[in-house]
Amino acid sequence: MAHVVPDGFSLAGLHCGIKRNATRNDLSLVVCDGPTVAAGTYTTNKVFAAPVGWDRAHTPSDHVRVLAINSGNANACTGARGDDDCRAMAEAAAATCGATADDALVLSTGIIGEFLPLAKISAGIKAAAAQLGDDEASLVAAAQGMMTTDTVHKLASRRVTAGGAKLQLTGMAKGAAMIGPKMATMLGVVMTDARLTPESAQTALRAAVADSFNCISVDGHMSTNDTVLLLASGTACDAPLAGDALADFQAALDVVCQELARAIPGDGEGATHLVTIDVTGGANRAAAHTIAKTIAESPLVKTAIAGADPNWGRIVSAAGYADTAFDPRRCTLHVNSYLLYRHGTPVGFDAAAVSAAIRDNRDTKIELDCGSGEASCRFWTTDLTAEYVRLNADYHT
Amino acid sequence: MAHVVPDGFSLAGLHCGIKRNATRNDLSLVVCDGPTVAAGTYTTNKVFAAPVGWDRAHTPSDHVRVLAINSGNANACTGARGDDDCRAMAEAAAATCGATADDALVLSTGIIGEFLPLAKISAGIKAAAAQLGDDEASLVAAAQGMMTTDTVHKLASRRVTAGGAKLQLTGMAKGAAMIGPKMATMLGVVMTDARLTPESAQTALRAAVADSFNCISVDGHMSTNDTVLLLASGTACDAPLAGDALADFQAALDVVCQELARAIPGDGEGATHLVTIDVTGGANRAAAHTIAKTIAESPLVKTAIAGADPNWGRIVSAAGYADTAFDPRRCTLHVNSYLLYRHGTPVGFDAAAVSAAIRDNRDTKIELDCGSGEASCRFWTTDLTAEYVRLNADYHT
Repeated sequence: MAHVVPDGFSLAGLHCGIKRNATRNDLSLVVCDGPTVAAGTYTTNKVFAAPVGWDRAHTPSDHVRVLAINSGNANACTGARGDDDCRAMAEAAAATCGATADDALVLSTGIIGEFLPLAKISAGIKAAAAQLGDDEASLVAAAQGMMTTDTVHKLASRRVTAGGAKLQLTGMAKGAAMIGPKMATMLGVVMTDARLTPESAQTALRAAVADSFNCISVDGHMSTNDTVLLLASGTACDAPLAGDALADFQAALDVVCQELARAIPGDGEGATHLVTIDVTGGANRAAAHTIAKTIAESPLVKTAIAGADPNWGRIVSAAGYADTAFDPRRCTLHVNSYLLYRHGTPVGFDAAAVSAAIRDNRDTKIELDCGSGEASCRFWTTDLTAEYVRLNADYHT
Repeated sequence: MAHVVPDGFSLAGLHCGIKRNATRNDLSLVVCDGPTVAAGTYTTNKVFAAPVGWDRAHTPSDHVRVLAINSGNANACTGARGDDDCRAMAEAAAATCGATADDALVLSTGIIGEFLPLAKISAGIKAAAAQLGDDEASLVAAAQGMMTTDTVHKLASRRVTAGGAKLQLTGMAKGAAMIGPKMATMLGVVMTDARLTPESAQTALRAAVADSFNCISVDGHMSTNDTVLLLASGTACDAPLAGDALADFQAALDVVCQELARAIPGDGEGATHLVTIDVTGGANRAAAHTIAKTIAESPLVKTAIAGADPNWGRIVSAAGYADTAFDPRRCTLHVNSYLLYRHGTPVGFDAAAVSAAIRDNRDTKIELDCGSGEASCRFWTTDLTAEYVRLNADYHT
């Protein structure tokens, strides 16, 4: 599918020398044609990277001009020097478009605890500014510039008509491990030509993230750098979206964020299955989310799926230790549409058939009905394979 | 080391046919000479096994006469029939010593969601009653009868003089995976000839468990069957322990529980390292415990240790997403006595030397000083290896 860059933005991505492999992009630049509305959601990790602190202090905003992104170095756990380096990166980005550092946002991802190679980054930002484009190739190059252990770049886009205006939303994201978000996850940037106030942008982004990036997990380890930004140029409409038009925009933003979020466990390190967990019948949304997340993060559930083992006891017992009320006598479990457990007692099922249904499909569907209310949560995770262990035991990342 | 059975108890362990391999014990019986004080701590999983419900309703007690244990079947997620089966198992055990079911406790561990093979268990209990002993061989046979994927049986014992009486404490435990306890973990039984009231037994056990079985993790998946029992025959003293004598007993009980608890991750599935995490400088005990447990359960920390990778960013970032206050600018991290991180900034260190120190020792020591108070927590966990994944992906357990 072709992805279109929303009006008001131009992008570039290139290799500036942070990653050893010179064929891998490690620096991206997003330049706004004019002052742009920006909202952000960030990791809740108390150990947060310098760029998280910077962006948090600079959003919501109505005057963002540029976003600089590097991969290969997270600028996390780098103390006061890390903060200075982040500001220098913002200044370098701002200089390319005659703005000040306070008009610039910064994203970093990669190894924790090493100082940014500022000379390489500054040179990279200048080079990127000289090759900005608004075509799909520029967008892909920028999406690649945020990748770390990702095997594919991740893009999602939608066109939507809202309040009579034809709007474009296009997002890019990265992430394959250290994925256990709470409030936001990893790096994501959604651009749109919709006109939003900073406050409505922030509200819309927070709502979209709650059902997307906050509903994924690879290994449950919350990153120091999780950030999702929404940039709205406003060129497609005369006045800020409100009422039904804002709701239409929200629906499109939700879809884009969910598509990007789902792509992260879809590219999870070593994963052989993308697992969709639908918890229904929850007493409330928070309870359904907690149960889904606890199932998603159980190594025993994840290894069972890797082994195509219809080991439903692991799923039900994980729900049971989730930090919320749960009554096994009311719950019903299906895996890939097979009924495995109903109202607290085992049911007979064809184990070989269920095993084959897991083994032969990359997508696994776990449906747990708690029988305790109307709330639900859809959560995406990976299986856990020996390859995940190998990737994370053998490499210093 | 020789382990002594405390006065007042006799034991047996044998194969009754639950496990396929006839050389593996799967049934144990502990018979008390007379009415015995018993205390218990149990899983907080909302999905708890039938024997957990039974024992919880029957402790603390001053009239326990017998304990029946089976492995190979957890009697969990088995509904009302599971409760009936558990009562039948208690009745069969009580019948061997002229007691009633309410004088009997039951422990089960193994596969979730299958009904107990009651005929095999009843026959096994009768056979065990005919071969009870109070020698070390009987103790070992009983400890083996509780094993599932354990590769070694787990015993710990201490002699202590308290209040002028010479006391014996001897415990057995099992567990190698589905280890992520909260209140208690897996199966543990500590026998003593000390005289305790039911209340002091319960208080002493709860205190000991807090610093032992509640401070271990293999995979963070809380079991449906976690139970630790304390059985006190009282034959070594005339009156219940109190004051200093009770404190001396508590200290010995703490050591026995910690030795048993540590043996569980020490035998963790697929593990190549036993990791001791010492969190100091915590604002309070709960904060130190939460930080230690979060580090212990991060797959990225565990794979780094498996790969002898001194990847301290993973440790510090795990502390940062623990659900408690944490200030990286105050924290200091040592791994195997090497300083890796101090007050929020990286320090130079010899990565090759630290890697070798991890690779060449089965024991890994993580010391994190939070610099925020006086509280501490010692926590034990495993690394995460491809072998753990293989064991749990390939076998239905």
